[in-house]
Amino acid sequence: MAITNAIKDFRPIVNDAFVAKAQALTPRLIEREAAPVRTVNIVPRGEDYAAETASPAFDRSAPMGRGNRLCLDFGEHLVGYVTFSLTPVGSPADAPALLRLRFGEIPYEIAADPSQYDGEISRSWIQEEIIHVDVLPRQVSLPRRYAFRYLELAVLDTSPKYRVVVSDVVCRSVTSADMAAVPPLRTDDEDLIRLDRTALRTMRDCMQTVFEDGPKRDRRLWMGDLRLQALTNYAAFRNNDLVKRCLYLFAGLTQNEGRVGACLFTEPSPQVDDTALFDFSLFFPCALWDYFQATGDRETLGELAPTAWRQIELALRDVDSRGLVADREGWWCFLDWGDGLNKQAGAHAVLIYSLRRAAEAARALGDASRAAGYESQIAALTDAALEHLWDEKLGFFVSGAERQVSWASQVWFALAEVFGREQNAALLKHLMERDPGVPMVTPYMYHHFIDALLRCGMEAEALAAMKGYWGEMIKDGADTFWELYDPEDRYASPYGSRLVNSFCHAWSGTPSYFIRTYFCK
Amino acid sequence: MAITNAIKDFRPIVNDAFVAKAQALTPRLIEREAAPVRTVNIVPRGEDYAAETASPAFDRSAPMGRGNRLCLDFGEHLVGYVTFSLTPVGSPADAPALLRLRFGEIPYEIAADPSQYDGEISRSWIQEEIIHVDVLPRQVSLPRRYAFRYLELAVLDTSPKYRVVVSDVVCRSVTSADMAAVPPLRTDDEDLIRLDRTALRTMRDCMQTVFEDGPKRDRRLWMGDLRLQALTNYAAFRNNDLVKRCLYLFAGLTQNEGRVGACLFTEPSPQVDDTALFDFSLFFPCALWDYFQATGDRETLGELAPTAWRQIELALRDVDSRGLVADREGWWCFLDWGDGLNKQAGAHAVLIYSLRRAAEAARALGDASRAAGYESQIAALTDAALEHLWDEKLGFFVSGAERQVSWASQVWFALAEVFGREQNAALLKHLMERDPGVPMVTPYMYHHFIDALLRCGMEAEALAAMKGYWGEMIKDGADTFWELYDPEDRYASPYGSRLVNSFCHAWSGTPSYFIRTYFCK
Repeated sequence: MAITNAIKDFRPIVNDAFVAKAQALTPRLIEREAAPVRTVNIVPRGEDYAAETASPAFDRSAPMGRGNRLCLDFGEHLVGYVTFSLTPVGSPADAPALLRLRFGEIPYEIAADPSQYDGEISRSWIQEEIIHVDVLPRQVSLPRRYAFRYLELAVLDTSPKYRVVVSDVVCRSVTSADMAAVPPLRTDDEDLIRLDRTALRTMRDCMQTVFEDGPKRDRRLWMGDLRLQALTNYAAFRNNDLVKRCLYLFAGLTQNEGRVGACLFTEPSPQVDDTALFDFSLFFPCALWDYFQATGDRETLGELAPTAWRQIELALRDVDSRGLVADREGWWCFLDWGDGLNKQAGAHAVLIYSLRRAAEAARALGDASRAAGYESQIAALTDAALEHLWDEKLGFFVSGAERQVSWASQVWFALAEVFGREQNAALLKHLMERDPGVPMVTPYMYHHFIDALLRCGMEAEALAAMKGYWGEMIKDGADTFWELYDPEDRYASPYGSRLVNSFCHAWSGTPSYFIRTYFCK
Repeated sequence: MAITNAIKDFRPIVNDAFVAKAQALTPRLIEREAAPVRTVNIVPRGEDYAAETASPAFDRSAPMGRGNRLCLDFGEHLVGYVTFSLTPVGSPADAPALLRLRFGEIPYEIAADPSQYDGEISRSWIQEEIIHVDVLPRQVSLPRRYAFRYLELAVLDTSPKYRVVVSDVVCRSVTSADMAAVPPLRTDDEDLIRLDRTALRTMRDCMQTVFEDGPKRDRRLWMGDLRLQALTNYAAFRNNDLVKRCLYLFAGLTQNEGRVGACLFTEPSPQVDDTALFDFSLFFPCALWDYFQATGDRETLGELAPTAWRQIELALRDVDSRGLVADREGWWCFLDWGDGLNKQAGAHAVLIYSLRRAAEAARALGDASRAAGYESQIAALTDAALEHLWDEKLGFFVSGAERQVSWASQVWFALAEVFGREQNAALLKHLMERDPGVPMVTPYMYHHFIDALLRCGMEAEALAAMKGYWGEMIKDGADTFWELYDPEDRYASPYGSRLVNSFCHAWSGTPSYFIRTYFCK
C-alpha cells in the first residue's frame, strides 16, 4: 500500500496494556547467511530487463576501478543486511573508494536510472546507496535492511593508483517465519508446488517483527494486508503469536474514537498512522474472528472484542437514510487499486461481511443480544442493497451515483453472501462471461475473487483463475509475488513509476492459503 | 599533494621500535562544538561563487520537503563530525527521508555539480553524501570526518504526507593543535594579524593525529609538507611531540633500501606509500635538524640520524659523472606544481641544502669525519653547479638539457647558499626584475621564495611578497590558506577540476612562521 489520506484532527489513543502485550510477543528473528550464486548482466528483454549469467570468462575477483560494475544474483529474494570485503590492489589506497550499490527485487531496478524517477510517492524507497569507504582494506557492513535478489556494486572511483576487489559478499537474511514449521505439500501438481513455494517465500520475507506488507515498501503493518497474511500463516507457518501481536498493536493504538487505523508503525516506537480506510477498520473484527477460529484463543477474542464492536459501530454511522453506506469523494475505502473504481457497493458489502463475523464472535462469547443486533443490521443492509444496488436487468450490483458495474462490487457481494450459494455462483459466472469492465488490478482483489469462487463451490474455476493469474506472474519472472499485477498492463504502477512498486508483497501470498486449505488438504 | 609515482618492486621496511615510539606519541584530539552562525545562499559572483546571508525572512526551522535546501555557514573552516536532528512534521513519517549533504571549504563546492567531475584524481574526495534516514525523528550522526565551512542540506524526498525540520546542527571539531598555547602576536599591523590568524587556523585544522597535508585531501602525512608544518609549529603551537611522532613514523616505515617515502598512511595501520620523491626524502635530514634546533632533543637526533644519513647516501647515487644530479623523466622530484618545470637544478640545490643540514647534525653528534665528508660533497656539488648550471651571461641557473630558467631553480640555489649572501640577494633581485617565466604556482614554492629573501636580508621584499601573495588569497575569500594559488590563474587545478583542490592546506600556513620568526619576534 502507499498513498494515503489523513483523518482530521488526528488524535491517537493508546492502550498501554495492549501495547505491552504486543511488545512482549515481539518475535526473535531467524537469521541465515546467503551468498550470491552467480554473476549476471542485466540486459533489455522486450519491454523489460532480464538477468543473464555473465560470461564464464568473467572473473568476479578481478580488481575494479572507476566505472567498473559487478552484478550479483543471490538466486532468491532475500530480506536482510549485506556485508562485503573491499581490498585494495596496486599501491596503498591513497583516496577513499566511492561505491554505488543498487538492490533490486527484479532486474529492472538495477537497470533503471533513479535520477529519472518522477513518481508521486517518495523516491527514498529506491534501494540505492552511494558510500565512501575511507580506510582500506575494510569489511563493509551496510546498516540498512534491503529486500532484493540482485545487487549491483558499481565502483564510481578508487584512484589512479589502486583498484579494489570485492569479496565475501554475504546477506544475513532475517525473518520471523520458520520454514521448517510449514507442513509438506501433498501434491504432484507442479503448478501448485511452484505457486505454493513462491507464495511461502513471499510470506517469509514479509514476516518480520510484524507482518509487513512488503519488505521493500512500505515495510509496515496494514490491517487489510494482515488479514490475508494471517490466513496464509494459519495454513503454513502457524506463527499464531505474530498474528496475536499484530491484533494487539491495532487494538492498542487506535485513532480518534477508537477507530482501528489502516496501518501502523513500530519504529521508533509503536504508533498508529493517521490513515483511515472504511474496509480496513472493518477487517479488524474479521481478522479477530479468523484468529479465534484458527487458535481457539478465547481470552484474546474476549479482550479484543470491544475493539471489534467499536469498528462495527463506527462503520454503521456511515449508513445513510436509505440504509446504504454513503458514497464519498477521495480515498476512503480501499477495495483495490485501479483508477475510477467506485467504492460504495464494495464498502456496503464489506460491512455486511464484517457484521457476519462480528455476530459469530458475539455468539462465541455468549453475547446473544449483540449477535441478534448484528443479525438485524445484516438484514437491513441486505434489504437496502437489494433495493438500491442490485440491478435485476443487468444482473449485477451497481455502485455510486453513476451506477458503476465493477468486478470488485460483484466479488464483495458474493463474499457478503447477500444471495445464497447458487445465486452467488450464478453472479460470478455472469461476471466472468460478461466482463463488465472496471477490472481487478491487484493480487489482493484477485484473492477475494478466488475466495468468492471457492465459497460458491466453484473449485475448478478458482483453481484455473489462481493458476492463470499467479502462474502468469511466475512466467513473467516473479521470485516472490508482486504487489501489483495486471496481465493486460504488466508494467503498470499506481505510483507513477514501477521503480517503487513492491515485488514481494504479502497480500499476494494467498495461493498457499488456497492450496493448503482447499486443494491439498 | 596528489598524483604520485610508484617505485618498482616496492618493499616496505618496518622498524617496529620506531613505529611503537611514534604510536605512543599519538596525541589526544581536542574537541570543540561549533554551530552554524548564519543561513546563506550560494550565488554566482564573477567567475566564482559567494555566500550571501539569506533573507532575514528565511526561517531555518521551516519544514522541508522534496527539493528544499538549506545552506549553513559555520563562520569558520572546521574539521570534524556533524550531527543534526531530523524531525517529521505532518503525518507520521511513512517513508524514509532522503537527504543530500554537501560540505564545502569554499562556496564553489556547494554550487558545483559533482556528477560533472572529470578530473584525474579520485572523485571520492568530493564531500557529498546521500543518506536515507529510515526512522524519524532521529538524531543523525554522520560517521565520516569533513573539512568545511559550508554545509548544504538538501531534502531529495520525504513523502507527500510529511516534511522534516532540520535542527541542532553541530560540528564536533577535532585538532591536536592547542590554540591556547600560541603566544599572542605583538603587532598592530592588521595585515600581519590577518595573515597570522588565517595561517594558524590552517595549521590547526591540519594538525590531527599526524600533520596532515590537508584535512579534505589527502588527509595524510607528506614529508615535504611536514617540514614546513614543523617550522610553523615551533613558532606557534610548540607541539613538538607531534613532530617527533611524525619523524619516527617516517624513520620507522621506509621503502626499499631505507628510503624515506614521500608520504605515509596511518590507517588502518601505519604504512609507507610507494611514492618516492628526490627532494622529499632529503627533507628528512632537514626536518630532523630543524627539530633538534627547536627542541635540543639530542636523543631523538641520535636515534634518527642513521635514517638521515641514509637519505643523503641514496641521493648521492643520483649524481652523474659531471657531478650533477642527473635529470630524469617523470615525476621524480616535487619542487612545485606547474607544467613543464624542469627539476634538475632545483634537485641539485636541494641536495646541497640538505647536505649542509646533515653536516650540522653530524657535528652536533660529534661525528666530525662524517661532517667533513659531507662538506667535501657540498664543495664538489657546488663546483659542478657553477660549472654546468650557472649561466654567467644570463645571470641565472639553468636546468635540464633545454637549459630552462625557472623561479624554482633560482630560489633553491639561493637557499643552497652556493653564493654568499650578497650574491644571492643580487640573484633574487635579478629574478624579480627580469622574471624569466616558469613561475611559482603554489604557496609551498612561495614559502621557499620568502625564505630565500629573508636569508639574504631582504626583509622588506619578503614582507611585501608575503603580504601580496597570501594577502591576495584572503581578499579572494580564503578562510584558511589554499593548497594552490596562482594570482594569474585563480581557478587553476593540477587535477583537472578545482572541486578536488584542498582549500585548507598546511604547506600554505607558513606566514605564521615568517611573521613570528622574523617580523614580530
